[in-house]
Amino acid sequence: MRGGRPLNWRWHLARLRADCATLALPLPAEALLVDELARVAPGDAVAKIVVTRGSAGRGYAMPAHAAARRIVTSFAPPAYPAEHARDGVTVHRCGLVLSHQPRLAGAKTLNRLENVLARSEWSDAAIAEGLLGDAGGRVVEGTMSNLFVVAAGRVSTPALGRCGVVGAQRERVRELLGARCEERDIAWKDLDQADEAFLTNSLIGAWPIVRLAHRQWAPGPVTREVQALLAELDARA
Amino acid sequence: MRGGRPLNWRWHLARLRADCATLALPLPAEALLVDELARVAPGDAVAKIVVTRGSAGRGYAMPAHAAARRIVTSFAPPAYPAEHARDGVTVHRCGLVLSHQPRLAGAKTLNRLENVLARSEWSDAAIAEGLLGDAGGRVVEGTMSNLFVVAAGRVSTPALGRCGVVGAQRERVRELLGARCEERDIAWKDLDQADEAFLTNSLIGAWPIVRLAHRQWAPGPVTREVQALLAELDARA
Repeated sequence: MRGGRPLNWRWHLARLRADCATLALPLPAEALLVDELARVAPGDAVAKIVVTRGSAGRGYAMPAHAAARRIVTSFAPPAYPAEHARDGVTVHRCGLVLSHQPRLAGAKTLNRLENVLARSEWSDAAIAEGLLGDAGGRVVEGTMSNLFVVAAGRVSTPALGRCGVVGAQRERVRELLGARCEERDIAWKDLDQADEAFLTNSLIGAWPIVRLAHRQWAPGPVTREVQALLAELDARA
Repeated sequence: MRGGRPLNWRWHLARLRADCATLALPLPAEALLVDELARVAPGDAVAKIVVTRGSAGRGYAMPAHAAARRIVTSFAPPAYPAEHARDGVTVHRCGLVLSHQPRLAGAKTLNRLENVLARSEWSDAAIAEGLLGDAGGRVVEGTMSNLFVVAAGRVSTPALGRCGVVGAQRERVRELLGARCEERDIAWKDLDQADEAFLTNSLIGAWPIVRLAHRQWAPGPVTREVQALLAELDARA
């Protein structure tokens, strides 16, 4: 939120719309959400919208008459070191392996125990993020971010049809890059052999990856270009 | 709860202990739980214990200083038709396929979106439960129950190392049957060819399965024996 207005709202609303459909939840009216966001976060803040099915009794059946609930909250902006974007970050390869569930893949739900377990794998403050893979030997995403890799001038980001979260910033970066970026399965060795790699989410923007185990990179030209494009859009927002 | 005392407490506590370990949550003191259960459910009721990590800010990191929270609630006993135990139930084969996550398999967590989606597959009141399988062609469990099958006098229940919930009643039935029951992978065709099949959970006891799609069974002798053993134990509790 900046000055009480949501940034990148189009992508966040698309994310919410898709996930409400996945979970058979009613999508709250856009005007209502924008109004509530401004009320809880009138200045610069991180805001969060949670939609729940509402209150009901025990059991897994979706209640026939429950009233869905919106929980709109705001937080102080996170204090990430400026060096993360400038100099790049060290990432950890998580031991936890993401499960495949095509019915929920891509959605940002409150069922995030895999991420909680993965995030608990490291406490070294020098590690900024953990990368998660699946049982097929593919790298899928970060615990709180999406991944892009650059090889031979081509940008790609993991396909998220089996697991992972389709982040709003990922979609924004894909749109910015257009035909230069493709979604595909990316093996860990593809990442190892990539010329550049970077992480995205709505709060971090884009962070160059400069270290994963013994592999080191320097922040590359495509990563810098994406950072510049995002900064330009944010300045205009 | 009967007369303010938890039934099958040993198995429920074992379930809670195992799951707290899986999720790195502190196990509440047993005496505290028993006291709180009696306070919320002084008579005959269904009680539920939820342990959460407590309150913290955004993000997936386990908070260093959060105080874990217990939520102990009680509900009226469910009104299942007596015919379910006596005459058996019709079950639906769910289209949703359970994902494999060995790190969470067996645990009863609040991440149950798969069960919610599976339970939404039918609304026909003649269907009492849905059976869930995995991507390996195995039948794993019901949406709210565990499965046992009987073939050539041998009882087996699906191994739950990849997915599924290790129910308290399942463990109790396994103990009652001792060496007569084995945990193993069970294919859908094994279920189809079984002489008997039944479902268990702490509230239903044991329900014979008498119909799945075109396959029909009559409640069998092993199912009746398990029901009798459970009734005898419950009467003595």
